[in-house]
Amino acid sequence: MKILILNPNTSEDFTRAIQKAGEAVKSPGTEVVCLNPSSGPRSIESVYDELLSCTPCLEVLIAHQAEFDGFIIACYGNHPVIHAAREMLNQPVLGIMEASLYLACIAGHTFSVISSGDRAITMFWDAIKAFGIKERCASVRSTGTAVLALEGLGKEKVEDLILAEARKAVEEDGAEVISLGCAGMAGLDERLKRELGVPVVDGVAAAVKLIEALVGCGIQTSKRRAYSPLEGKELVNLPKVFSLPYDQNSGD
Amino acid sequence: MKILILNPNTSEDFTRAIQKAGEAVKSPGTEVVCLNPSSGPRSIESVYDELLSCTPCLEVLIAHQAEFDGFIIACYGNHPVIHAAREMLNQPVLGIMEASLYLACIAGHTFSVISSGDRAITMFWDAIKAFGIKERCASVRSTGTAVLALEGLGKEKVEDLILAEARKAVEEDGAEVISLGCAGMAGLDERLKRELGVPVVDGVAAAVKLIEALVGCGIQTSKRRAYSPLEGKELVNLPKVFSLPYDQNSGD
Amino acid sequence: MKILILNPNTSEDFTRAIQKAGEAVKSPGTEVVCLNPSSGPRSIESVYDELLSCTPCLEVLIAHQAEFDGFIIACYGNHPVIHAAREMLNQPVLGIMEASLYLACIAGHTFSVISSGDRAITMFWDAIKAFGIKERCASVRSTGTAVLALEGLGKEKVEDLILAEARKAVEEDGAEVISLGCAGMAGLDERLKRELGVPVVDGVAAAVKLIEALVGCGIQTSKRRAYSPLEGKELVNLPKVFSLPYDQNSGD
Amino acid sequence: MKILILNPNTSEDFTRAIQKAGEAVKSPGTEVVCLNPSSGPRSIESVYDELLSCTPCLEVLIAHQAEFDGFIIACYGNHPVIHAAREMLNQPVLGIMEASLYLACIAGHTFSVISSGDRAITMFWDAIKAFGIKERCASVRSTGTAVLALEGLGKEKVEDLILAEARKAVEEDGAEVISLGCAGMAGLDERLKRELGVPVVDGVAAAVKLIEALVGCGIQTSKRRAYSPLEGKELVNLPKVFSLPYDQNSGD
Amino acid sequence: MKILILNPNTSEDFTRAIQKAGEAVKSPGTEVVCLNPSSGPRSIESVYDELLSCTPCLEVLIAHQAEFDGFIIACYGNHPVIHAAREMLNQPVLGIMEASLYLACIAGHTFSVISSGDRAITMFWDAIKAFGIKERCASVRSTGTAVLALEGLGKEKVEDLILAEARKAVEEDGAEVISLGCAGMAGLDERLKRELGVPVVDGVAAAVKLIEALVGCGIQTSKRRAYSPLEGKELVNLPKVFSLPYDQNSGD
Amino acid sequence: MKILILNPNTSEDFTRAIQKAGEAVKSPGTEVVCLNPSSGPRSIESVYDELLSCTPCLEVLIAHQAEFDGFIIACYGNHPVIHAAREMLNQPVLGIMEASLYLACIAGHTFSVISSGDRAITMFWDAIKAFGIKERCASVRSTGTAVLALEGLGKEKVEDLILAEARKAVEEDGAEVISLGCAGMAGLDERLKRELGVPVVDGVAAAVKLIEALVGCGIQTSKRRAYSPLEGKELVNLPKVFSLPYDQNSGD
Repeated sequence: MKILILNPNTSEDFTRAIQKAGEAVKSPGTEVVCLNPSSGPRSIESVYDELLSCTPCLEVLIAHQAEFDGFIIACYGNHPVIHAAREMLNQPVLGIMEASLYLACIAGHTFSVISSGDRAITMFWDAIKAFGIKERCASVRSTGTAVLALEGLGKEKVEDLILAEARKAVEEDGAEVISLGCAGMAGLDERLKRELGVPVVDGVAAAVKLIEALVGCGIQTSKRRAYSPLEGKELVNLPKVFSLPYDQNSGD
Repeated sequence: MKILILNPNTSEDFTRAIQKAGEAVKSPGTEVVCLNPSSGPRSIESVYDELLSCTPCLEVLIAHQAEFDGFIIACYGNHPVIHAAREMLNQPVLGIMEASLYLACIAGHTFSVISSGDRAITMFWDAIKAFGIKERCASVRSTGTAVLALEGLGKEKVEDLILAEARKAVEEDGAEVISLGCAGMAGLDERLKRELGVPVVDGVAAAVKLIEALVGCGIQTSKRRAYSPLEGKELVNLPKVFSLPYDQNSGD
Repeated sequence: MKILILNPNTSEDFTRAIQKAGEAVKSPGTEVVCLNPSSGPRSIESVYDELLSCTPCLEVLIAHQAEFDGFIIACYGNHPVIHAAREMLNQPVLGIMEASLYLACIAGHTFSVISSGDRAITMFWDAIKAFGIKERCASVRSTGTAVLALEGLGKEKVEDLILAEARKAVEEDGAEVISLGCAGMAGLDERLKRELGVPVVDGVAAAVKLIEALVGCGIQTSKRRAYSPLEGKELVNLPKVFSLPYDQNSGD
Repeated sequence: MKILILNPNTSEDFTRAIQKAGEAVKSPGTEVVCLNPSSGPRSIESVYDELLSCTPCLEVLIAHQAEFDGFIIACYGNHPVIHAAREMLNQPVLGIMEASLYLACIAGHTFSVISSGDRAITMFWDAIKAFGIKERCASVRSTGTAVLALEGLGKEKVEDLILAEARKAVEEDGAEVISLGCAGMAGLDERLKRELGVPVVDGVAAAVKLIEALVGCGIQTSKRRAYSPLEGKELVNLPKVFSLPYDQNSGD
Repeated sequence: MKILILNPNTSEDFTRAIQKAGEAVKSPGTEVVCLNPSSGPRSIESVYDELLSCTPCLEVLIAHQAEFDGFIIACYGNHPVIHAAREMLNQPVLGIMEASLYLACIAGHTFSVISSGDRAITMFWDAIKAFGIKERCASVRSTGTAVLALEGLGKEKVEDLILAEARKAVEEDGAEVISLGCAGMAGLDERLKRELGVPVVDGVAAAVKLIEALVGCGIQTSKRRAYSPLEGKELVNLPKVFSLPYDQNSGD
Repeated sequence: MKILILNPNTSEDFTRAIQKAGEAVKSPGTEVVCLNPSSGPRSIESVYDELLSCTPCLEVLIAHQAEFDGFIIACYGNHPVIHAAREMLNQPVLGIMEASLYLACIAGHTFSVISSGDRAITMFWDAIKAFGIKERCASVRSTGTAVLALEGLGKEKVEDLILAEARKAVEEDGAEVISLGCAGMAGLDERLKRELGVPVVDGVAAAVKLIEALVGCGIQTSKRRAYSPLEGKELVNLPKVFSLPYDQNSGD
């Protein structure tokens, strides 16, 4: 089984960390490849950032769509490319936020998300509502720091902030499980689990195992309604490659 | 007062029709300009289509952001450019679906949306949930036809289908108001209103009047949390113009 | 276009302030008339007060129903006269709370309401649920003071209390927009906006602009279901004038 | 124990039928008195009707407030006088719709309401949402007939229509219990129960037993927040009697 | 009328206290019998405890099913025996938590539950959601003590803790009514009511009066869908008595 | 990795079919053991059946708790033993209904459940609400047949009924994915998938892969709040083995 993990930002440090996190949990027969687009923002912390990453991400997906059994969009959130990919592809497609939260819902009654910026509080609540699982969410908390701080020298300090917010989620908000709200937090789960005594879910690991589960059960993306095949359509002044997803469908 | 209506698809027929619909309702002191991007899909009926339209739309917004008092994204749905625009701009920004539904909520107790494709049923329900007003929605119904059919020869036939679905919404689903679920349906409201005896809301007209209302009340986009100013960020291999929204904010 | 603003209490100071607030935002072609009933409570802070104001308000509406293009009930809340007026009239009818909240929903992701008495917390939450938009409400906060204090000498002190609660709504509850929860707060929006840096919506201004929007779009009250015409009915020992809304309908 | 049942319309036939229904279920030690106001509409089928009944109903309550241990407002719906009465009084106050639905929630998993006019569908759904129990409601169905038809010659025909709708509620909507949506339907419960084989709840009977339950448990109306005592207030051009509920409170 | 109150734990002190609480509120013509099973846990504070109490409870119900007009399961929570009993029996069946909360919903706009252990916070919220009335719940608070502490020497201290949490519910969470979240708290309602000035509902008293109400209205358990008669079924290695509920139904 | 699948009924045919379904999807390094209790009902179709299966199931779990890395309760529904097991154990515990629905939520926007008896419609809706994912559920449909019919001669006929209901779910209710609502339906997924053209999820397969995912990510059951360790407790007249889960915890 081959899984493509698409890191939608252009930080190669993140891509390497995600690749490593994926490999750490994959089954023996699984091959995991993490790629990032060749253009776009270095990190994604707003809808504006998300939208700049879209066409570069779609290009990666179009180029590699036949080579993989499942696809992961490794941006914590409800990145719109997840939904476009489900329209384009028959294989299962999964965002790391969804993956993380479904496993969190099994590990405990309620979960909290720890994010790395205030805007993310709104974006993550919206995502949780869109997934239809807000009943299970105890809180979304933010450290108030930028995503890229997780790469830099201040890493330890940022981790302390994440730990502090996670502790408040458990003690004040009633969270039974913590979901790490950023692909860049991969690896932090061990420390938090040890210090807080609750399950901590890393989205990349969760997504790799869930894609393995879906492929193992022979479950693909439903092509009825929401993700039905794309109708042929005229594109104006866009690279030809973007017509491919339409053409495939019209050839069905 | 100057209002930019951005038609996010590349159909100039649609752009002209929207311009006309906007002018028909604007107040004497208002100037309405409808533009479409120079590249992108001819119509928007999927998340994939939406994403192809994003960077061309952002370019239009960046180019004209200083010239207008309010901005309308004239694609029926929860197009992600609406939210990016609110992050980028201080002026009010409004999608035609939201505009239509808020006026529908005043005109009656419940509304139904008539859309032009099956995928739209899911997309519009998601949008209605995201707006937080699903309690007011009696149904989303679809004619099962493509958006561009509204331009072509079969216009009258398509109108008959829309009327038939709208009638079912009123008689079977309990709708008290109809919202026309496509920018391309502008102008159809008069016929439906006459034949069904209920208010029928056209999104473009609603949005123009609501932007006038917001500007008239001196209400701009909140810059707290969800739409707070964009943090400066490194862009890789993207045209320089896309850095402008960051730079502005850092100069705040 | 002529708009009747009905202040349902009998405070003429309030009536004058509302008239002024309406005139400050109306379009050049609009005429705004604010009236209050000749009997009833001096302010409305309970369901009991609301009910005492009802028949006097209905009398005003019956007397003037043919002269206006739209009607505003200028009591912040879900005053039952709003719904009776929609049953009686074809023209659009709007309460200032609804008007305020729909504009707030466009200006930001979440809003908070600042009210002037503890009972109002329950009444306003109920109204927000009845409008079907509770997902968007961050909080309802109260200053714990009486409505009429806004007229008196302590005006500045009351304003300080309102500002303090609004600040907590923004900083602790995550509100992105503030809705002023009392018709008597008209004029305060400028100060709050300046000090809090978020949009502040005044209900009277919002309602005038929204009625202009509805009339401008040719949208009237739906006469299906909830607000269908009133059936003829025998009234016992009531002034004859209250039979008029029935008679009109039976003559349809 | 003495219970006042206030029939808010002016139909004395209804008053007598309600009195009889109340007496049929009351405990030996309970005295039940059903009164109607001396003015107001003959039946209540709209918000307009409700509002015309308010001040006459308040007068009855003020006149008799010291004589009874509990109060029932015998209009199926969320009549606003219920809430004003809770503000005015310490004793328990109950509408017959609430009473009916709480007992229905014990008798089965889901209930349906059968009403007597189309407008009631909206009004009853709103009431069910306001009570906070919409999860338990399978449907609200209407016979499309007027309330007063229940008095007239066509009584049997109306009963057949009610039975037909109730049967659909059970067989198509999954209702396990039927709530009769009109005080005028008292007595019909036996026939429906026999023919449908499900529990059928009559609101007047339910309310009498629930008031007995509350009084028996020593439970009065909470005077915190929603129903806190009425603040003293100036009334303009209103009969003096309406100041009594304020004066009582200020004398606390 | 004869009512069986089943205390599902094996604490005879609790059984006696419940019997006393039931007798204190019953009507003259009602006979109340409180029983507990002969085996099972001494108190019920987890799902594990609940499940150990199930077959002993079912045996009690089977043995006495023909002798009573109504059944109360006197464990605060959504004990699964309530639902099995409704499947087995035609008579009304009621848990003391439901009973308490429906009366609380009449006494005020919002209620809070005070429980005696942290796990109960989750269990009670789940129960409130299952009853479909979470809109009315202001909070669930816990004293963090064990249920059996209510029997022991520390009774007064436990009562102080309950009072302290109830006070916070009223003052911080906006509760208008308090529901005592443990059968062992019977008798405490008087003290809390006096000190807090809000209605306090004891579940045992509420359930006795509500069963009287249901029996008085002739309302039995609906045998459609959720609680339809049990289909005949083969039991392996179980005492014969457990086949009785099936046999009765097959003889229908 | 060793996974215990507990079939809570006493049908050994079911146990063998579940074992086979588990083995068909497990990873090379996983060992799957399916057991059923030695006493209890032959099938589980009511709360009464569930409760008869509880103590026998708990015995199996207590006997084998140290030998397995994860536990599956193979009864489609929200069987209470799932929650007791989570209280008793540190390892992950999963019901096949939850497992099925989380994978369904990834495969499409909406799912429907096809069940085998009318009572199940209510039980499954309650379970879906308890899981907090009702927003994603298009419908719960029933074939109206008994669970054990799936074993017998009429197997093909039952399968036709399931197919017919699943087709209605897709075509009328808007389901994009089908979840098979009975452990006895294992193996049917292939036929339905082929005939309906949508993903069909089998709960046993889903649960095995999800337990592998949880164990692979090192995620155990949270021991905070809902599933915190069981407090020591006196048991009256119960076999000693049932004290073990308490004793373990007190030794913590």
